Amino acid sequence: MTAALLEQYRERIRTELDRVVDFWLKYSHDKEQSRLYRTMERFHRPEILDAAKSGAAFLQKFARVQASSGPGKCAFCLTRDGRAVKVQRTIFSECFYVMAMDELSRITQDKEMQADAESMMDRLIFWVQTDSSDLGRPQLPGDPPINSMAVPMMLLCLVDQLTEGRTDVAEKYKDLSGWCVEQILQHIQRDGKAILENVTLNGKELPGCQGRLQNPGHALEAGWFLLQYALKKEDAQLQKTAVDKFMEIPFHTGWDKQHGGLFYFLDVDGHCPTQLEWNMKLWWPHCEALIAYLMAYSHSREPLLLDRFKQIYDYTFSHFSDEEHGEWFGYLSRKGEVVLDFKGGSFKGFFHVPRCLYMCEKLLDGLLERQDS
Amino acid sequence: MTAALLEQYRERIRTELDRVVDFWLKYSHDKEQSRLYRTMERFHRPEILDAAKSGAAFLQKFARVQASSGPGKCAFCLTRDGRAVKVQRTIFSECFYVMAMDELSRITQDKEMQADAESMMDRLIFWVQTDSSDLGRPQLPGDPPINSMAVPMMLLCLVDQLTEGRTDVAEKYKDLSGWCVEQILQHIQRDGKAILENVTLNGKELPGCQGRLQNPGHALEAGWFLLQYALKKEDAQLQKTAVDKFMEIPFHTGWDKQHGGLFYFLDVDGHCPTQLEWNMKLWWPHCEALIAYLMAYSHSREPLLLDRFKQIYDYTFSHFSDEEHGEWFGYLSRKGEVVLDFKGGSFKGFFHVPRCLYMCEKLLDGLLERQDS
Repeated sequence: MTAALLEQYRERIRTELDRVVDFWLKYSHDKEQSRLYRTMERFHRPEILDAAKSGAAFLQKFARVQASSGPGKCAFCLTRDGRAVKVQRTIFSECFYVMAMDELSRITQDKEMQADAESMMDRLIFWVQTDSSDLGRPQLPGDPPINSMAVPMMLLCLVDQLTEGRTDVAEKYKDLSGWCVEQILQHIQRDGKAILENVTLNGKELPGCQGRLQNPGHALEAGWFLLQYALKKEDAQLQKTAVDKFMEIPFHTGWDKQHGGLFYFLDVDGHCPTQLEWNMKLWWPHCEALIAYLMAYSHSREPLLLDRFKQIYDYTFSHFSDEEHGEWFGYLSRKGEVVLDFKGGSFKGFFHVPRCLYMCEKLLDGLLERQDS
Repeated sequence: MTAALLEQYRERIRTELDRVVDFWLKYSHDKEQSRLYRTMERFHRPEILDAAKSGAAFLQKFARVQASSGPGKCAFCLTRDGRAVKVQRTIFSECFYVMAMDELSRITQDKEMQADAESMMDRLIFWVQTDSSDLGRPQLPGDPPINSMAVPMMLLCLVDQLTEGRTDVAEKYKDLSGWCVEQILQHIQRDGKAILENVTLNGKELPGCQGRLQNPGHALEAGWFLLQYALKKEDAQLQKTAVDKFMEIPFHTGWDKQHGGLFYFLDVDGHCPTQLEWNMKLWWPHCEALIAYLMAYSHSREPLLLDRFKQIYDYTFSHFSDEEHGEWFGYLSRKGEVVLDFKGGSFKGFFHVPRCLYMCEKLLDGLLERQDS
């Protein structure tokens, strides 16, 4: 019974992944395509590797902007011919640069590219742990540094990328992983009943709306990053925390009981968030929720976790997937209508959807394999 | 018949202005209150002047941030005790600083404060016309300078503020007004059929979604700034352009035929704008539209323009005004439901609503006076 359901999910997810890859291969040559090439037989095709190579060459040539925006910064947005349009005063463009270069270097065995990824990673660590002034944000007395969940999450994700199958690199970043986990766990607040997006550097609640902010999709993403890490470490306590705190809490607070789907932002005290888009339904929180619950179920076989996956899956596939033209819509109103109909934009490219489908398909493969045996 | 209608509008607007002023006097001491004190008898009350004075003292002491964010920059946001939280890399916080200091100096006869306003104004002009590097935005090769409508609009509004009743100052900024008008008129595009928010420095259409962006509320605000200027100059051609281009075009393209109200953003080619909040109904575009059409009607007595005012008035007063607690809600869904229920935030304070009510009441006074005589 469960096997039939899992099989059905895998079939739909597999087809969807094919359609999504076709969509981006057709309309965009992007940097994130090489993991598919490396780890999934049906995507081990020369046109995918070529697209990844040309994407990486473009990034290496143009994305690293020069000194005026801080040494080592990457552009967030470039013109078609490679001129920088925008440089964010955060670390995230550089994080994606590391991810892309490391992944491609694994196939091409390009040692220089791997070194490029690692040196950017070391710069990221310096910005986060030692001195952020090169990011270009003026230090203002009313805006002290905070612990924003995105930062340790991204670094933990990068450590996972860089260390796969490499014991020496894993050794190098061992302490960093521990630090990231510790920083992420500081976001459990209110006697363990809430995950807050921003806390002080020593893990206390911040005043005002910044301190009350909840981002359910982000918490769920942190949840599967933590669970993945805890499974590798065989840390049962952390596995439980990942599921109970970083999945169940954001699912319960974030799910819209009236119209379905996950809210983008919420205020822990029930006030209205200050972000105009707070009640919209975005594609990526749903992607993260699907991965989180399938990973959690895959590990524990707890039927409740499969029920959660089912609930999110039903909403996601009936609302976001574009049956006609492929790929997913990104932005729905609270009631689930498509409000912005483009497929690609500054924050939506060949990343969240294929990563979600890829991870889910792999997890379902594993589940069905064990079911068979 | 019309007089009765105008009288009815004035009564409601007058009451609303009283309620709005009460609201902000109770919950916020703010910098923009002194024009009411100076020009409306019923607000010529010591507590209003005191609030304005203490607001100005706070701004003079704390808002001007030091060198790291560029000389002469003002904070966009401060903590309660005056520490800078955010400094925008634009000119707008400084524009509001000029407006506040100039207005208060007119009552207090504080020559130093007036000089402070003028010196900030001169710095603004330098940033806009000569060198913007102190704003702190790195010059990126893919992001060349553009003509964004907000900039000449704000400067024109400031010239109007600074020159009221002062021939010497008017003489000083005469060329600047002309330059602002010219820059604003460059936003008439597509053979006179569209107002675009961003154009090149020599008035050509920009490529991509930035070039296709329309902001109806902004265009309507530019409309009444232009009309006000053209009336002073007795420039009939510019008066006509202000109404036909900067009011009628954004009204027709911006009005939501299905659910009423003005959209926040639109794409001139009918694509979906990239701003997540594009289809929301915000309070301030409706404020600007009310002023624009009442000013236009007041000048020409063209019944069509009063019909427009009526249409916007009916939507605005039935959707934004909070009957129970005073002031207006700021952010509605496309369908007109309140989506964010706070009254004050980073972009909504004691400014757009009272300015709109104040201007409309003054215009209605003028109309009814002429009607009587």
